[in-house]
Amino acid sequence: MSIKNAFYAQSGGVTSVINASACGVIQTARQHPDKIGTVYAGFNGIIGALKEELIDTSLESDAAIAALRHTPAGAFGSCRYKLKSLEQNKAEYERLIEVFKAHNIGYFFYNGGGDSQDTAYKVSQLGDQMGYPMVCVGVPKTVDNDLPITDTCPGFGSVAKYIAVSMREASFDVASMCSTSTKVFVLEVMGRHAGWIAAAGGLAADADNDIPLVILFPEVKFDQAKFLAKIDEKVKKHGYCSVVVSEGVKGADGKFLAEAGGTDAFGHAQLGGAAPVVANIVKEALGYKYHWAVADYLQRAARHIASKTDVDQAYAMGKAAVELAISGRSAVMPTIVRTSDSPYQWHVGHAELKDVANVEKMMPAEFISEDGFGITEACRRYLQPLIMGEDYPPYKNGLPDYVTMKKQMIAKKLAEFSI
Amino acid sequence: MSIKNAFYAQSGGVTSVINASACGVIQTARQHPDKIGTVYAGFNGIIGALKEELIDTSLESDAAIAALRHTPAGAFGSCRYKLKSLEQNKAEYERLIEVFKAHNIGYFFYNGGGDSQDTAYKVSQLGDQMGYPMVCVGVPKTVDNDLPITDTCPGFGSVAKYIAVSMREASFDVASMCSTSTKVFVLEVMGRHAGWIAAAGGLAADADNDIPLVILFPEVKFDQAKFLAKIDEKVKKHGYCSVVVSEGVKGADGKFLAEAGGTDAFGHAQLGGAAPVVANIVKEALGYKYHWAVADYLQRAARHIASKTDVDQAYAMGKAAVELAISGRSAVMPTIVRTSDSPYQWHVGHAELKDVANVEKMMPAEFISEDGFGITEACRRYLQPLIMGEDYPPYKNGLPDYVTMKKQMIAKKLAEFSI
Repeated sequence: MSIKNAFYAQSGGVTSVINASACGVIQTARQHPDKIGTVYAGFNGIIGALKEELIDTSLESDAAIAALRHTPAGAFGSCRYKLKSLEQNKAEYERLIEVFKAHNIGYFFYNGGGDSQDTAYKVSQLGDQMGYPMVCVGVPKTVDNDLPITDTCPGFGSVAKYIAVSMREASFDVASMCSTSTKVFVLEVMGRHAGWIAAAGGLAADADNDIPLVILFPEVKFDQAKFLAKIDEKVKKHGYCSVVVSEGVKGADGKFLAEAGGTDAFGHAQLGGAAPVVANIVKEALGYKYHWAVADYLQRAARHIASKTDVDQAYAMGKAAVELAISGRSAVMPTIVRTSDSPYQWHVGHAELKDVANVEKMMPAEFISEDGFGITEACRRYLQPLIMGEDYPPYKNGLPDYVTMKKQMIAKKLAEFSI
Repeated sequence: MSIKNAFYAQSGGVTSVINASACGVIQTARQHPDKIGTVYAGFNGIIGALKEELIDTSLESDAAIAALRHTPAGAFGSCRYKLKSLEQNKAEYERLIEVFKAHNIGYFFYNGGGDSQDTAYKVSQLGDQMGYPMVCVGVPKTVDNDLPITDTCPGFGSVAKYIAVSMREASFDVASMCSTSTKVFVLEVMGRHAGWIAAAGGLAADADNDIPLVILFPEVKFDQAKFLAKIDEKVKKHGYCSVVVSEGVKGADGKFLAEAGGTDAFGHAQLGGAAPVVANIVKEALGYKYHWAVADYLQRAARHIASKTDVDQAYAMGKAAVELAISGRSAVMPTIVRTSDSPYQWHVGHAELKDVANVEKMMPAEFISEDGFGITEACRRYLQPLIMGEDYPPYKNGLPDYVTMKKQMIAKKLAEFSI
């Protein structure tokens, strides 16, 4: 049996630890030259496979590959490109198989969220049908934390840590000045469908840190009167209040709060941002001086304050994907299995891709406090271990020393393919 | 001669290292019990002195005081309260002297920016006139970096590091996805009058990190056509572009760009934020997909990624202030004197408060590149040492373990005073 090469691709929104998974895949593959030849990485994700733009990772040094573990974003390029269904565009799947055949690729590692796991599943099926069986293994990744079966998704723990740290720090700032300055601070966080990231803001307060927090979850319809009453109560008691608002919060009319931004002075469409809208609602109704921040990409790129737990798990998922593949498993995805909250214990498991594809794990209702503005103890028990530990990158000239891949492509063998 | 007590107050916008200065003041005073009695901290800054709300720092443990060094914001409370001129409101100055007399306070340490140094100077003069001479020493602090004479201001280096780190990380994120997603990322930073913080964003790029950056300084009038041409050029060359916009950028009409936000759907006044305005200008003219972030308080509270140089200097300023005071100097402020860029060398000097008060140090014109959108090598040489070194706080439960003071006030002796 000839030794097959492997294809690895990063998919969808990147995270501060997706490269740690890439590191796990490539380092583990390098340890098994008897099973896996070269790992080719898709340039800009799956688009790289379709266009036959394959980065030869064997030309990247061991040191560069090791540095992926502490480098945020997608080192080989990622993309937002969802393959259509087999029925709608079989040509794309056939092209993938054609490219894989041309470069003797027998392993397909797809590092992404729910859509990507669905694609990996389809590729695994099609390979069989076309007489070119592929070993297809998903590598979980998403800051949205919405993949099923796995206890958490690599990428989420680090965003959670960033948001909790930032909210604690900003709250210390506001607390110290609220007598004469800002009384309400609003931080907008990611999460269009699920409030996992918003919930992490709740960790800013704990037994040692009495921080008045109000969280606006996308799971809870925005009730302006109830919200204002809660803010007023907190400001009257603590002198200030910090608000976490998920970008996905909707009003009673079912529209995103962010869409209430209206038009600007040039008559342009709304500028976006739920935080300024919420801050303005407070100002208009209660008159409190406000400030607001929108973390946007800063939160998912913040490798400088990544969770060590998250980095370790991201690496472990990449490593486990290769180990599953060389043990002959296909159409699977490694998972994180939690066996204890405190002390936190977990091990690597795996799930069938057919059970992962197209299933979205929502935040349990019992994670949101009864008033709808906070997290429960059950939620805290779940979240707490995920932000544990620091895993600082090396620094050079006062800044994180992140690696950039050489990204040398292998020669193309096939005709152009338009996507 | 009886041993006098000391008064210490934090003033104006807080920083991630102003408590390091407080730590320097209190620890150094504790080492000289033969010269300085108790250090009383103003609750919420100078307002605490006016209201006779004095925190007895001797009731805070050595460990708690040591922890100030790694705790952001104003541990004793700060305020935005500018004393009027002596002519306009002499009563306030007389009240200060009255409170200081009542509590045998002979030392006045005022930790703040330009306005605060002006206040310290006035108190030093008035004490003499009223037959109750005070030893008045300023402690420099401001993220705006606009105090004269001192090479830099404690607080600035850490904001600079935060912005440079964040911009590098977000740019890695955008670079990895620009083929199918965001092509222009805009980060709004503080700096209403001077572009020091915006300039720090320029450090995100260096010889090892080829990041396309466009910086909008408050010193440069916003020229929309020139800006759009620059963005288009960078996106065409690199596939994406990162933009740093200072909150203080003004258009040709002299108005803040942030004011162009117009009205929201409720007809409310503009929501603020220069970043969404700039992002929208790009979208409307060039059609590029954008994302934007507003760092707001996150940048000045981010003790988790403080510059070690900044922390060391903040502490040194507090320590030097006490040493100046016990050596009999008054109406002075310690300064940072740079003697070499590389290797970076500095020592503590001092300036007369009369020379500091009401002088604002602007960014030199030669720090901005000829096209108005970047920093020069001279600027880089100045900024680089200020972000050097990391000084991580201790962590507990995955989050920075910041200290909260007990803030026990001493008994009042005087009548109420309304402000």
